Amino acid sequence: MAFSAYDASLAHMAAVVGPGHAITDAGALRTAETATFLTHQHVPGIIRPGDRREVQECVRIANRFRVPVYPISSGKNWGYGSRVPAADGCLLLDLGRMNRIVDFNEELAYVTVEPGVTQAQLYDFLRERGSNLWMDATGASPECSLIGNAVERGFGHTPYGDHFAHCCGLEVVLPTGQVVETGFARFPGANAASAYRWGVGPSLDGLFSQSNFGIVTRMTLWLMPAPEYFQAYYFRCEEPEDVSALIDALRPLRLDHTIRGASHIANDYKVLSALEQYPWERAGGRTPLREPLMREFRRELRIGAWNGSGALYGTRAQVKEARRLLQRALRGIASKLQFLDDRMLRVASAFAGPYEMLTGWRLQRMLALLRPVYGLMKGIPTAHPLASTYWRKRTPPPAAMDPDRDGCGLLWASPVAPADGHHAHRLTALASDILLDHGFEPMISLTMVTERSLACVVSIAFDRELPGEDVRALDCYHDLMQRLASDGYYPYRLGLAAMAGGEQPGAYSDLLRDIKDMLDPAAILAPGRYVNTENVASETVHTLVTKVSS
Amino acid sequence: MAFSAYDASLAHMAAVVGPGHAITDAGALRTAETATFLTHQHVPGIIRPGDRREVQECVRIANRFRVPVYPISSGKNWGYGSRVPAADGCLLLDLGRMNRIVDFNEELAYVTVEPGVTQAQLYDFLRERGSNLWMDATGASPECSLIGNAVERGFGHTPYGDHFAHCCGLEVVLPTGQVVETGFARFPGANAASAYRWGVGPSLDGLFSQSNFGIVTRMTLWLMPAPEYFQAYYFRCEEPEDVSALIDALRPLRLDHTIRGASHIANDYKVLSALEQYPWERAGGRTPLREPLMREFRRELRIGAWNGSGALYGTRAQVKEARRLLQRALRGIASKLQFLDDRMLRVASAFAGPYEMLTGWRLQRMLALLRPVYGLMKGIPTAHPLASTYWRKRTPPPAAMDPDRDGCGLLWASPVAPADGHHAHRLTALASDILLDHGFEPMISLTMVTERSLACVVSIAFDRELPGEDVRALDCYHDLMQRLASDGYYPYRLGLAAMAGGEQPGAYSDLLRDIKDMLDPAAILAPGRYVNTENVASETVHTLVTKVSS
Repeated sequence: MAFSAYDASLAHMAAVVGPGHAITDAGALRTAETATFLTHQHVPGIIRPGDRREVQECVRIANRFRVPVYPISSGKNWGYGSRVPAADGCLLLDLGRMNRIVDFNEELAYVTVEPGVTQAQLYDFLRERGSNLWMDATGASPECSLIGNAVERGFGHTPYGDHFAHCCGLEVVLPTGQVVETGFARFPGANAASAYRWGVGPSLDGLFSQSNFGIVTRMTLWLMPAPEYFQAYYFRCEEPEDVSALIDALRPLRLDHTIRGASHIANDYKVLSALEQYPWERAGGRTPLREPLMREFRRELRIGAWNGSGALYGTRAQVKEARRLLQRALRGIASKLQFLDDRMLRVASAFAGPYEMLTGWRLQRMLALLRPVYGLMKGIPTAHPLASTYWRKRTPPPAAMDPDRDGCGLLWASPVAPADGHHAHRLTALASDILLDHGFEPMISLTMVTERSLACVVSIAFDRELPGEDVRALDCYHDLMQRLASDGYYPYRLGLAAMAGGEQPGAYSDLLRDIKDMLDPAAILAPGRYVNTENVASETVHTLVTKVSS
Repeated sequence: MAFSAYDASLAHMAAVVGPGHAITDAGALRTAETATFLTHQHVPGIIRPGDRREVQECVRIANRFRVPVYPISSGKNWGYGSRVPAADGCLLLDLGRMNRIVDFNEELAYVTVEPGVTQAQLYDFLRERGSNLWMDATGASPECSLIGNAVERGFGHTPYGDHFAHCCGLEVVLPTGQVVETGFARFPGANAASAYRWGVGPSLDGLFSQSNFGIVTRMTLWLMPAPEYFQAYYFRCEEPEDVSALIDALRPLRLDHTIRGASHIANDYKVLSALEQYPWERAGGRTPLREPLMREFRRELRIGAWNGSGALYGTRAQVKEARRLLQRALRGIASKLQFLDDRMLRVASAFAGPYEMLTGWRLQRMLALLRPVYGLMKGIPTAHPLASTYWRKRTPPPAAMDPDRDGCGLLWASPVAPADGHHAHRLTALASDILLDHGFEPMISLTMVTERSLACVVSIAFDRELPGEDVRALDCYHDLMQRLASDGYYPYRLGLAAMAGGEQPGAYSDLLRDIKDMLDPAAILAPGRYVNTENVASETVHTLVTKVSS
């Protein structure tokens, strides 16, 4: 009985998706069970449906046998759990084969995609068509799913950086196998289905982000017309506490849309980890890297305690005026404010030496870092930031990076603060202290993700191959999350390690549970992902899996 | 038994809110039952809770006696049903007394309000504090509730025009009487509760807009920092079909944020109705006003078939560049492109005669119309547009206008189209034909409410005191709504007359009904409002009310 539920559902699902797409190979399963931090969840099988109908069939089979399924789009949820399910014993529903670009409109600037469509795929699609539209990209990797990131409410670096604010028309397979489309998309022939978010009646889009209420099998993403002119800017602040004045100076420009994109401000540790691996030799083999040595690196590499980047988009006159306002706002607050456009970047690359002499800027070294960040602000995907997951490794990153496979340790905590200098400083100082106390380098970035808020990302980078480090890193993570919450800084997104806690008891968690129970009576969809429930299926399954794996 | 359910619940609610706030006076009830079009719903009583706790108590009493309640904020839902409940026999829960401004932050540019806070109240609040922040205002009236409009996803005229896109942190009384707060607001001491919309986990805000899933008792509204410089623009197109090229010319500017506000384009009928009442004499007492006579008015009043207005916000240099881009885009497409700022408006008012001579613009007459529209683009509430509801009346609007009381007939249909010239023309031509066929003037506006969409508002204005006109207007409305939907233009918002239809059967309506049944098992909250249900309470009540009123 115990075995037959999995066997039977796998057999039925294999009949739906084709035997080649029902995977129980031990190596593949172990890969699916591996994240960039310690997890215990077992994955008894991987199912790769090819279209929405197959997803529906699989979900119906899951209900019939009460076996939980866990959808992933590309599974590149680095730092938050990669492709590992939130609960033990879930069949992984890998939507990667569903990679069609279903609709595209140059004039209204949108594209409708399936969950398997990656950042690189959309980028190539737009370029091949000679489109004048830019996508937004995250730094995670070119192979990331667009929908996967949007439903996690991830963010990128262009004016369309708040991904879930720039999409509409979700097609969702509910846990029962029924399909709904949100907004106007539910009506036949609705002309504004991809142009207008709300539709009519209650707006349901939000239900299907950061939840286990449904499987998004299609979504419209809005794209940004390429500006006539683009100019990136870079600046730095010398001391950690300068972040306070900096945020207060930038906020008015973000609020009045002079800065339309999501300005990105990284601390010294974050920049160093993007440039190099851990300086084992100079640190005498000891960790963490503490302030005195960090100060040396700041001086040598000419990086600040805080290092900002962002971009200005518009006509030449619009950019010129934005530049004037930015210069005025940062005067006396940030130093080395530099601007860079396509022409200058070409020149700089060609004549890095003389340019360096003229500007006093160590261009050669910085160009390697700048180029991917510059591209991200134009929505060009890059694998570059992945390299920093190898920070604590003793060998350099391989050509084909795979943090999961290579035992790179990475835990991301992402608290949100108001776009207010006092909060920016309090939050980052607190996070820095906690990480150093636990023996990790506080790599921190602040992104002005909306007009009023900062998304802070704190990376705990470690070497999973070092004995005990997995546990030490998780201890640090939990301590960090708890102390940030005590101070009122709650995360915009949860990693697997934080989901186990669940909502605090109360009316809100009751409401979430009631919605979950109503939508998913058999609790077969992604149990434990953001929303907990009475969880009949996964409890059953837990017992089963214990048997299977023992 | 039949009578006692109402009597008992009214008595219990009166004990909660105080006897002076439980109203059963026949005149007050008749007022509550009166909209700007034909309705049949009876209102057996009005309850005016003073705070959230009293709302919770009333909802619990409603559950106990299975008597439906229907919340209104200010009840100024003109054209869509005023304060009349969607179902018969609902106790009106009038939230007007809950009018506290709970929180305000000048730096982060937000305000947290209760449902009774009106546009005028917030405007005065900001002015009294010497705040540098602008609110967004609708043209409905200064006495409109901010929350009421936001949860209906109404729109105004500034860059913050899409109201539901510029709010967060909802406090909601659920139909069971429990309270939830959305986003980070549910966590104790969350610093970003009013600054960041999504919070963590599923985003529930959308559930409580255009629905009967809960009563919003508090909400944070984002405000816009006043720009250094403001300039309004006006233009016109001569022929109805010019709207096509016009929208295609404006769309790129809206997409690239050169135009940040919601440009507003009104047809000739709409402008005429804002300037004057129906020209009974010149039309020989006949309706509708047809093209030949309309053409005369266009010539005399120097109005176009389409008349656009909008505004540019920024520094002087930013506005100057936006102005150049707008002039370039509209060249050969629109005529009489005029710009107006505060100084010019003062000068124009003082020297209207000479200015008129110089510019060839009939300024005297237009200033009366321009001033309120100009103010709306700065977020200044106005009662002026209300006057047009008296269009078909034979007597002028009174000083204290009240369309419900005065028998003004108004039905608003508000289809959405993509921001595409072809659609703009097809939609407006179709609406025009339908209204004229039914004997009404097609007063139409198009608002570029988001980067990719047009909110079209079609007004059916009539005189309710004319026998048969109520029915003729509703016939026209239903014909219009149905034919627009057949052509793929669905409304962004429903009036009472459209709610009766309910969702088309299918997975989506099943989902809405399941959510409703789960949240409101006794079906006591606003039955029939956007979402239908098995509706136990209101069926019971229907029987009761028939008895009461017979």
